[in-house]
Amino acid sequence: MGFLSETPDIIFKRPLFCGILANTLLSTVPGVSGAGATPEKTLLTPVLDAELITTGAITSHKARPDTPTGCPTPASITRAMMELCGIQPVFINAGLRYTPTVPCFDIYGKPGEDPRFRDAVPHVLDLVKKGESLGKHLSKCSDLLILGECVPGGTTTALCVLRGLGYEASVSSSFVNNPVTIKEQICKVSLQRIKAGEITSPLDIIRYTGDPMMPVAAGIAKTYDGSLILAGGTQMLSVCAVIKGLGGSLPFVVTTSYVRDDPSANVQNIADQIGVKIIYVDPGFGDLGHAGLARYCIGEVKEGMGAGGAMCLAYLMGYSPDKIRHTILAAVNAYC
Amino acid sequence: MGFLSETPDIIFKRPLFCGILANTLLSTVPGVSGAGATPEKTLLTPVLDAELITTGAITSHKARPDTPTGCPTPASITRAMMELCGIQPVFINAGLRYTPTVPCFDIYGKPGEDPRFRDAVPHVLDLVKKGESLGKHLSKCSDLLILGECVPGGTTTALCVLRGLGYEASVSSSFVNNPVTIKEQICKVSLQRIKAGEITSPLDIIRYTGDPMMPVAAGIAKTYDGSLILAGGTQMLSVCAVIKGLGGSLPFVVTTSYVRDDPSANVQNIADQIGVKIIYVDPGFGDLGHAGLARYCIGEVKEGMGAGGAMCLAYLMGYSPDKIRHTILAAVNAYC
Repeated sequence: MGFLSETPDIIFKRPLFCGILANTLLSTVPGVSGAGATPEKTLLTPVLDAELITTGAITSHKARPDTPTGCPTPASITRAMMELCGIQPVFINAGLRYTPTVPCFDIYGKPGEDPRFRDAVPHVLDLVKKGESLGKHLSKCSDLLILGECVPGGTTTALCVLRGLGYEASVSSSFVNNPVTIKEQICKVSLQRIKAGEITSPLDIIRYTGDPMMPVAAGIAKTYDGSLILAGGTQMLSVCAVIKGLGGSLPFVVTTSYVRDDPSANVQNIADQIGVKIIYVDPGFGDLGHAGLARYCIGEVKEGMGAGGAMCLAYLMGYSPDKIRHTILAAVNAYC
Repeated sequence: MGFLSETPDIIFKRPLFCGILANTLLSTVPGVSGAGATPEKTLLTPVLDAELITTGAITSHKARPDTPTGCPTPASITRAMMELCGIQPVFINAGLRYTPTVPCFDIYGKPGEDPRFRDAVPHVLDLVKKGESLGKHLSKCSDLLILGECVPGGTTTALCVLRGLGYEASVSSSFVNNPVTIKEQICKVSLQRIKAGEITSPLDIIRYTGDPMMPVAAGIAKTYDGSLILAGGTQMLSVCAVIKGLGGSLPFVVTTSYVRDDPSANVQNIADQIGVKIIYVDPGFGDLGHAGLARYCIGEVKEGMGAGGAMCLAYLMGYSPDKIRHTILAAVNAYC
C-alpha cells in the first residue's frame, strides 16, 4: 500500500485536531497498560502527552517522551505533525486523575472506575450531553475534525464495550506481547456484570464497563457538522460501535498499519462487523534509521494520541510521505 | 440616546460570546461584593452564572437567579440574549474556588489572593500565555468576540490596577451604595505594596494587586484576530489599561448606561484617559413593568457577566430594542 490505504473523499479548509484525555483505573492493574513506567504512573500519561503536544516539551515532571521500552511516544509523532501543519491542537479533559498542565476544555468528569467491581462511568448521560455541547462549539471552529484520544488502559475498556455490544472482538495493545490473559479476565468479569444487569443499550454498556472518553466522543460525533475522523484503533472502533448502536451516522476511522497488523487483534474484522470505513496510515518507520521508531513496525506502541490521524491529516494537507517521515524523525531525534 | 450610544463599525459573520470566570479572595471581605447572599457565597457566583447561561437554569445548588436584593442577575440577561441570538457561549475558568458544573476552557489557575497581604496573581505571565493560546483558538471559531467576565470583588481589583497604573479612577459597584470606604482602604494598602516594590510594569501590577481574569483577557486580546469587544465596565477598562501599557491595540468596550450613570464612578473619564472607545447600551428597563429590572435604573446591579455586551450583540445582529427588552422581560418573568 501507499502512505494511506485509501484516500478519503474529504474537502476541507479549516482542519482541527482535538485529543480527548481520560483515565480508567484499569490502567493501574499491573500488566494492563504499557503507557507508563509503572501501573500507577499510567494515570499521568495523558497529562504529559497533552503537555508535549501543546508546548513541544515536558517540563512539569521529570519524564522523557519515550515509552518505558525506549520508543518515541505517539504523542511525539502527533506533536511533529501539529508543527508541520501549523495547527494548534485542542484537548478535552473527560476525566483525569491529575490536573493538566496545559489548557483543556474540561467537562469536570472523573476517571473511569474498575468495571469488575462497580459502574465504570456512572454519569455517562451527562458526559454525552457535554460531548454534544463540545461538538457544537467545534463545528464553529473547523470543517474537518481529527479526534484522537489518550486513555491508558483504554483497549481493555474497548474490549469490554465491543464484546458487551455483541461484537467478536480482540483488541490491540501498546505492548509487543499483548497481555491477552489479564484483559480477557477483566472482560469476563465485566461481561458477567452486564449479563446480571440484563444490560443491552450502548450507553448502559459504557456505564457498566467503558471509560469517560467514549461518551464524550459519541456526543461530539452526534453534533459535529463537518467531516469527522476518529483517530485511533480498537478504542475508536468501540466508539463507532456505540454510535451505531445509538443510530448515529458513522465517521471515518484512521489508524496506523501497525494496529491493523497486530496478530492478537482483529481490527479490520471489527470495522467490517460495525460497517465503518477504516483507513490505515503506513508511515514506513522501518527504514528511517531510528531504532525506536523501527520497533513500531515489529509491534511496539503502534498508535496513540491520534498519531495515525495526525499523519493522515498532514498527508491530506498536501505534505509528502517523505516530508512527514523526516519531520517525525527530526522531532524524535531532537529529544535525544 | 438610542439603544446604543454609538453603533460600532463592525462587520461580522460568526459572532461568539465568551465569559471569563475567576475569583478574588477580596470578595470574601465583608462589604466588598454584592454578588452573593454572603461574602463567602460570592465565591460560588461565577459557577452559578455560567450554569444559568449555559443550561437556562441553576439545578446544581439551591439558588435563584436573583441578586440578594431581589433583582434579576445580569446572567439572566446574558442567557436571554444567547437564546435570542442562537449563540452557544464559551466559558473560561481562569481561577475558581469551586468546580464549574458546565464545561469550561480551563487554564487550571487559582483564585486571586488578597492584594493587601500577598501577591494577588503570582503566575500572571503563565496566565497571559494561556490567554494567548485561547485567543488563537477563538480566532478560528469566530470573527467577532464578545468577551465578558464574572469576578465577584473584581471592581476592587480593577480600582487597584487602574490606580497602580497611574489612572485617576473611581470604580463602579453592584451595590446601590458603592462601598467606597472599604474599597479605598484595600486600594490604599495595595498601592503601598506596589510603591514599596517599586512596581510599574502592567503585568507586575496585576501580579501585585489584580485578579486572574485580567491577564487571561489581555492574552486573548493580544492574539485574537477578529473584532474584539470587552463587555463590562470598570473591570474591562482595567484590562484596557493593561493592554495599553503593554503596547497592544485597544478593543472596544461595551457596558450599560447604568454603569456610565454611576455617580460614584468615573467610567467615561477613565476611558478617555486610556483613549479607548466605550459604548453604552441603554436597555430602558425603567418602563418594562418589572420592579427588579427597574432597579437597574436607580443604580442596582448595573452590569455583569457581559450583559451589556450581550445586548449590544443582539442589536448588532439585527434584533430591535423592543424585541431585546421583551425577550429579557419574558426570561426573567419565567424564573418567578
